[in-house]
Amino acid sequence: MTAKRVAVIGAGPSGLAQLRAFQSAAAKGADIPEIVCFEKQANWGGLWNYTWRTGLDQYGEPVHGSMYRYLWSNGPKEGLEFADYSFEEHFGKQIASYPPRAVLFDYIEGRVKKAGVRKWIRFETAVRMVTWDKETKKFTVTVQDLPKDHCYSEEFDHVIVASGHFSTPNVPEFPGFDRFNGRILHAHDFRDAREFAGKDILIVGTSYSAEDIGSQCWKYGAKSITNCYRTAPMGFKWPDNWEERPLLEKVEINTATFKDGSTKKIDAIILCTGYKHHFPFLPDDLRLKTANRLATADLYKGVAYVHNPAMFYLGMQDQWFTFNMFDAQAWWTRDVILGRIKLPDSKQALLDDVQERVAGEDAGKDSHDAIEYQGEYVKELIAETDYPSFDVDGANEAFFEWKEHKKKGIMEFRNHSYKSVITGTMAPAHHTPWKDALDDSLESYLRTAEAAE
Amino acid sequence: MTAKRVAVIGAGPSGLAQLRAFQSAAAKGADIPEIVCFEKQANWGGLWNYTWRTGLDQYGEPVHGSMYRYLWSNGPKEGLEFADYSFEEHFGKQIASYPPRAVLFDYIEGRVKKAGVRKWIRFETAVRMVTWDKETKKFTVTVQDLPKDHCYSEEFDHVIVASGHFSTPNVPEFPGFDRFNGRILHAHDFRDAREFAGKDILIVGTSYSAEDIGSQCWKYGAKSITNCYRTAPMGFKWPDNWEERPLLEKVEINTATFKDGSTKKIDAIILCTGYKHHFPFLPDDLRLKTANRLATADLYKGVAYVHNPAMFYLGMQDQWFTFNMFDAQAWWTRDVILGRIKLPDSKQALLDDVQERVAGEDAGKDSHDAIEYQGEYVKELIAETDYPSFDVDGANEAFFEWKEHKKKGIMEFRNHSYKSVITGTMAPAHHTPWKDALDDSLESYLRTAEAAE
Repeated sequence: MTAKRVAVIGAGPSGLAQLRAFQSAAAKGADIPEIVCFEKQANWGGLWNYTWRTGLDQYGEPVHGSMYRYLWSNGPKEGLEFADYSFEEHFGKQIASYPPRAVLFDYIEGRVKKAGVRKWIRFETAVRMVTWDKETKKFTVTVQDLPKDHCYSEEFDHVIVASGHFSTPNVPEFPGFDRFNGRILHAHDFRDAREFAGKDILIVGTSYSAEDIGSQCWKYGAKSITNCYRTAPMGFKWPDNWEERPLLEKVEINTATFKDGSTKKIDAIILCTGYKHHFPFLPDDLRLKTANRLATADLYKGVAYVHNPAMFYLGMQDQWFTFNMFDAQAWWTRDVILGRIKLPDSKQALLDDVQERVAGEDAGKDSHDAIEYQGEYVKELIAETDYPSFDVDGANEAFFEWKEHKKKGIMEFRNHSYKSVITGTMAPAHHTPWKDALDDSLESYLRTAEAAE
Repeated sequence: MTAKRVAVIGAGPSGLAQLRAFQSAAAKGADIPEIVCFEKQANWGGLWNYTWRTGLDQYGEPVHGSMYRYLWSNGPKEGLEFADYSFEEHFGKQIASYPPRAVLFDYIEGRVKKAGVRKWIRFETAVRMVTWDKETKKFTVTVQDLPKDHCYSEEFDHVIVASGHFSTPNVPEFPGFDRFNGRILHAHDFRDAREFAGKDILIVGTSYSAEDIGSQCWKYGAKSITNCYRTAPMGFKWPDNWEERPLLEKVEINTATFKDGSTKKIDAIILCTGYKHHFPFLPDDLRLKTANRLATADLYKGVAYVHNPAMFYLGMQDQWFTFNMFDAQAWWTRDVILGRIKLPDSKQALLDDVQERVAGEDAGKDSHDAIEYQGEYVKELIAETDYPSFDVDGANEAFFEWKEHKKKGIMEFRNHSYKSVITGTMAPAHHTPWKDALDDSLESYLRTAEAAE
């Protein structure tokens, strides 16, 4: 009997969690399937890779990354710490709570380097099409090796989609965009805030992207920030040169007009209008269609595709929890594939599970409830596998504190510290307030307070 | 017996030429196959549609257009006029020789509106995959209806790829790009030159894009233009604030260093580094791989794919001739499909034809020879079909004069006029010199000199 074959699409945090989950089982003596991970980029890390490229990459593929320079985590690292690989294990010491990109990339990479799973990844390989054969019960995955400009197909027993959902921008149009005289870009294409120094910036939206990209532009010298909202302002205590307005109605040459009739001269427009779940490599019978919410459509336990439970999707939820939730999902998916967890026999049972999750989310009334809801989901999955259990309620507490800190000072919240729920250690205060820390390098961040200039 | 089915991929100038070719045969009484044209955009015209969008579109698909605002034809319209639909027929009068985008779009659209072929086009439908079945000798084309988010497959006897090759940018990296503090973009993402008013612009390359985008930036108020070259400068008589330097070596923060060791402070970098032939929807056995040259690889008569001559590619050549060459190719392809033209039986004969064309191109020594070479190719195809014959040598003459006019004054060449080879009428002089004509609308262009302010 030949070994099962499992395709993992994407080597970002979710896909890497899946590789680590299988390697962990193998290290404990389990027979594991053959794992092939297809990754479009030249390196692992998904969104946590930084590239200056926008639009299409060197192979003509859509650039995966939405990462920009100077990004620091917008939530405390204590909410996302791997239960099987703490920040202290990786850095040899506890570090401050809002690491910049390079630090988080290093941390993500540290675990999978230790696990030795890079050999399972075929880099610079774009998945073109996946099909399912009802007779053979196999998936055919057609990919293109980009450097060799060579397409080929292979068969798999399972496909795990871990390609993320913050790569394909949702880009609305407003009247006058075709005649605006400055740059219009989506957050996906934002790279270096210094490009906007001295400029009057309009940000459309109130998402995390709006909040953080606006803050970046402010930090690196934009003349003013205006953000506009459809339903409600973000309501933080913004600096003097930042204001919130009702939704954009139109632009004329260089003037924006808002729903309240007010106008403002602007130099550039950044659309922080969210992302789409986008799977151009999947036909109708395999393609997840869901809103960006905590209880996704069509995924049993938030992972197994109800219309074909040989297929799994990781990390497709809207997210309070991230890396550790991806781990919980990856360990759980692994155990289904290894036969340790049995899926219900009836499709109705799968659908009922989805329905219950949707109702559970809908019953929540605010972000506090949402955090607890997703925390419970993480606990539920972890309880069914050997993923190291951790104090999820403690992680929730870090999120609650974080939200209070943001309310108190949106440009100061990153100066706070939280306690690790993995090691129990309190994070140190960072040596420099976020707004003054212009150098976002790993070296700069890891310097202790004493060594900092 | 069921009618043959033909898929045309793309409704730009090449794809529309193909629809018009079949419609023309039908109008003369021929039985024609069922034609289905798949077009990703919401409208026809291909590159001649303007969109403010860059990167990915509203459906997450790569934006097809490389079109920018204020673009005027960079060659005389007398070199591209349709032999079956003159500018005079369309506009009711002769017009000046270098029309802006909106005027050319109107002209392209006029012919196909008259032909009534819009019903054959499925808009907002992206081709995902094409496969060939050796047994049935049919192609399966899998597409996605983007607004409906629905994938489906259909079978065809022929596939004609008319998706263009100026949509997927070739984007090289230079040292320091990941730390440059301004915008870096490829010509594909260039939209409004006014974004660069007052700035020091670096243009990498010496292509038509380099020449024209630099000229746009200059016309709309850039502080300075620097372009850099790998092999040789463009050598035009540039304005005082435009200079040519050897190739970029690196950038550091805001300083560019060139191969000769010279440096320059720059605000933005525009990569005018060409485009790729890119067919992510085609497997290895159907995918054209060719350099951008007059004699493409693997296309018999520059059109029929030698490895599967049931498949055709239109407009994949480097181009002096454009619309009228696409017509010649489309009429010829139509006649093969209608059985009016017989392809050689042996693959060797197809390969020999390609080899001869390559040798013919290689024997030319300069652009004069290249223009004549491509003119001969157009003549060759036209002679085998009922496409209206026209004075190709006369079109060549327009190209020769155009090149002289560019040498004399790169910012003045568009003020010249040429004689139509279709109607024999001389084009009028335009009412305003190009460098002073900031309004590029159709209305403005079509005003007669007397009516112009």
